[in-house]
Amino acid sequence: MPSLTLADLQARLGGTIRGNAGVPLHGAASLGQAGAGQLGYLLNRKFLDQARASAAGALIVPASLEKSLSDTLPQSCLAVDNPHAAFARALALLYPEPLALPGIHPAANVAVDCVIDATAHIGPGCVVETGARIGARSVIGPHCVIGAGVQLGEDCRLHAHVTVQHGCVIGNRVVLHPGCVIGSDGFGLAWEGNHWLKVPQVGRAILGDDVEVGANTSIDRGALDDTVIEDGVKLDNLIQIAHNCRIGHHTAIAACVGIAGSTSIGAYCQIGGAAMIIGHLEIADRVTISAGTFVAKNIKEAGTYTSVQPLMRHADWLRNAAHLRHLDDLARRIKSLEKQLEQP
Amino acid sequence: MPSLTLADLQARLGGTIRGNAGVPLHGAASLGQAGAGQLGYLLNRKFLDQARASAAGALIVPASLEKSLSDTLPQSCLAVDNPHAAFARALALLYPEPLALPGIHPAANVAVDCVIDATAHIGPGCVVETGARIGARSVIGPHCVIGAGVQLGEDCRLHAHVTVQHGCVIGNRVVLHPGCVIGSDGFGLAWEGNHWLKVPQVGRAILGDDVEVGANTSIDRGALDDTVIEDGVKLDNLIQIAHNCRIGHHTAIAACVGIAGSTSIGAYCQIGGAAMIIGHLEIADRVTISAGTFVAKNIKEAGTYTSVQPLMRHADWLRNAAHLRHLDDLARRIKSLEKQLEQP
Amino acid sequence: MPSLTLADLQARLGGTIRGNAGVPLHGAASLGQAGAGQLGYLLNRKFLDQARASAAGALIVPASLEKSLSDTLPQSCLAVDNPHAAFARALALLYPEPLALPGIHPAANVAVDCVIDATAHIGPGCVVETGARIGARSVIGPHCVIGAGVQLGEDCRLHAHVTVQHGCVIGNRVVLHPGCVIGSDGFGLAWEGNHWLKVPQVGRAILGDDVEVGANTSIDRGALDDTVIEDGVKLDNLIQIAHNCRIGHHTAIAACVGIAGSTSIGAYCQIGGAAMIIGHLEIADRVTISAGTFVAKNIKEAGTYTSVQPLMRHADWLRNAAHLRHLDDLARRIKSLEKQLEQP
Repeated sequence: MPSLTLADLQARLGGTIRGNAGVPLHGAASLGQAGAGQLGYLLNRKFLDQARASAAGALIVPASLEKSLSDTLPQSCLAVDNPHAAFARALALLYPEPLALPGIHPAANVAVDCVIDATAHIGPGCVVETGARIGARSVIGPHCVIGAGVQLGEDCRLHAHVTVQHGCVIGNRVVLHPGCVIGSDGFGLAWEGNHWLKVPQVGRAILGDDVEVGANTSIDRGALDDTVIEDGVKLDNLIQIAHNCRIGHHTAIAACVGIAGSTSIGAYCQIGGAAMIIGHLEIADRVTISAGTFVAKNIKEAGTYTSVQPLMRHADWLRNAAHLRHLDDLARRIKSLEKQLEQP
Repeated sequence: MPSLTLADLQARLGGTIRGNAGVPLHGAASLGQAGAGQLGYLLNRKFLDQARASAAGALIVPASLEKSLSDTLPQSCLAVDNPHAAFARALALLYPEPLALPGIHPAANVAVDCVIDATAHIGPGCVVETGARIGARSVIGPHCVIGAGVQLGEDCRLHAHVTVQHGCVIGNRVVLHPGCVIGSDGFGLAWEGNHWLKVPQVGRAILGDDVEVGANTSIDRGALDDTVIEDGVKLDNLIQIAHNCRIGHHTAIAACVGIAGSTSIGAYCQIGGAAMIIGHLEIADRVTISAGTFVAKNIKEAGTYTSVQPLMRHADWLRNAAHLRHLDDLARRIKSLEKQLEQP
Repeated sequence: MPSLTLADLQARLGGTIRGNAGVPLHGAASLGQAGAGQLGYLLNRKFLDQARASAAGALIVPASLEKSLSDTLPQSCLAVDNPHAAFARALALLYPEPLALPGIHPAANVAVDCVIDATAHIGPGCVVETGARIGARSVIGPHCVIGAGVQLGEDCRLHAHVTVQHGCVIGNRVVLHPGCVIGSDGFGLAWEGNHWLKVPQVGRAILGDDVEVGANTSIDRGALDDTVIEDGVKLDNLIQIAHNCRIGHHTAIAACVGIAGSTSIGAYCQIGGAAMIIGHLEIADRVTISAGTFVAKNIKEAGTYTSVQPLMRHADWLRNAAHLRHLDDLARRIKSLEKQLEQP
């Protein structure tokens, strides 16, 4: 790990130093775990007491924090407008990605007609099929399989065991985590009298720039037209994106979410973990879906939407849940009581 | 891609041509995206306006569509009894699977005592362990791992990174998508005073003919007896089938479903995405489970079953959901009101 | 498979033989499927009739079963205190793991500075990166990728296609099933005006001794501090453990569960399949979460907790579920009725 001073960070991140600009930093940690030589950060004043008690060597703090308050902190501080983002950038400086040497590992299998930029790294065991193109400085981790005709942009990072199926198109600065599958067949079936007939899936999966896809997530190719993941979309682990979905730019989706076929999600949405969205829906821009929520209809307005059962002790649940089967009856009985009382 | 005429399609698919039989086709697309030279299809008359506006070169239409209506379509048409299935078959003709050369890739590791049909293709990086058998024309994609003693039938297609654990049996024409795992250990644990003891899982996973398994889906081997996936079952991505389940023939299961141990699902069922079915249940034939539904009891009759919370604006949900903890109280109060009003 | 007598099993497992100690056993099966030469087991007296009808060659039975009852069984019996655990141990004797030869497969890629115990097995296609350490008798299956600086203990078993990302620490006797990913990046994002900025994830994932991780499960590394899976934790397939979670010792988690970031689960918990637990929660020791339950608040006391919708026929659900959107209204109307009736 490199060693940087707070002044080095300021030179890269901007902001104002309060205290010793020369404090050396060789890593980062949470307020509770950090020691001397480690950078911490204060997201907002809710964490002031934790920060005061922290042994961190320096802190990134919000510029909006009054100097009278930051003066109560024992650490040198770098005050910035957006401490979360500045801390993220500081982490990237303190923990640089290991260098991947340009070139094709001898234990990789690359078709002769691929176009691999000379600065790209193709790891051991990779299989790159006919006609694929891989852009400058992209790093393809061990055992990735890049199908025929795939186009992969610049500065991408594919971790181990990623599969990109034939014909898919992937932008620049895309990160694909281990085991994710891009362009798998959609679940297209035609009923033919007494059995299902597979409907060949001939569309592609198209990922924009700055997309990130989590471990073991799958994104199906389109049935006819394409599945489209727009710029800046962030997908966590174990997500399923079915064929012909469109995910709008800068939408973030937490783990274990499933989105069924042909649904279109707007831009700047946030989908909580394990939410489930059925097919052929339209979700507007800037919609927030709570974790665990089931979405079965279009959402036309920005806002937060929820549909989860509250947790109960099991004994309470047994007592209460039984009535869910009879809500209609309860509602009718209330109406009938109201009628009776109306009558003179 | 090959170029075919509408007459060529008719020769393979049957049906009646209305219009120019010679229209050349080199691909297919949705009604909205198709251009000249591309085939589209009309599932039913709901899409007539879209079809009329489509630039597709030709359409597959239902034979039941009156000639007076199909005459209003600008495209040449092939009228068939089952347009969805005929379109699927047309796609397979227009987009043939790339040829996989017979033989074992030099970068594969195949045990000396395996029986690999001479027409099978074993891709780069494949590992085929002792005693495995692979049938005629089966294509094993890059990096698949085929365990000891596995039997794999004819005309199967394994995509990249598939794992088939030792002893499993797989029928003919089975398609396994990237990252799926067949025959992983079931979750068998015995409590031994102060810790869990692993129960060795010694059954197999048996897949019938024409089964399809989606990306990153896992099917556990049986604990003692076998896990059985019958002929024609179609499984989407990220599904979990636990040990000793039986899935009846021609049942289709959408993505993100979990089925716990020893549950038996009937034939011709349809299980919606993210449904969750607990263990040791019996589900009858021809049952439809809605997406997102939780099944905790046997289902003895065909029909559609559901258990999901409706979506609300978060503020509405906060107001409403609180009462779910007190439904029993509400029900008792209604009863008490009814009693009071009964009294003279 | 080896052949053992019931006396051999008794020598290893303890217990008392009732009947012929010399009955030869070469395998095991369920009561319904077992034949001569196969071992079955009787968990408790609920299964007595099944046991009497079974063709099994011998049974493991609970020592608490009265001799008068076990005398009605046609099989030789080994009576033990914990028949489930004894049966698990018998299975391990009857079905020993195939021997994996010590050494590094020629088709593996191992960095020169790794420390691989001479008794460990590194399978074909494995990639072991700089500085990794692998302990005695550990078996690394085909195509595993072990990142830089990983420490892996003794007697571990990694199945095919496992990824362990750089710097993670794994204890002894850990079993990792195909496709699982240990130490993937957490979902750390900072909002930067008009896009998400990736927050580098610089913590580790630490797995204790005797941990088991199911197929295609992902365990994220910590953001700053570590994600910790304590000794004896058992995780089923397709589970997501987010960054900075802590799972207490001997907790068992069934398939398809998601646990969001920074949540701490106690020891000896049991989490049912497809349960979903949001982030930053504390769950006490010895908590049972029912399958399909959504947990959105701390649980401070041991016990069983549930939040699922009961299954209904779809038509009933349509009638009942509509009222969930108006529960608050129903509750107010009940209150109003009560008020009216109170008035003289």
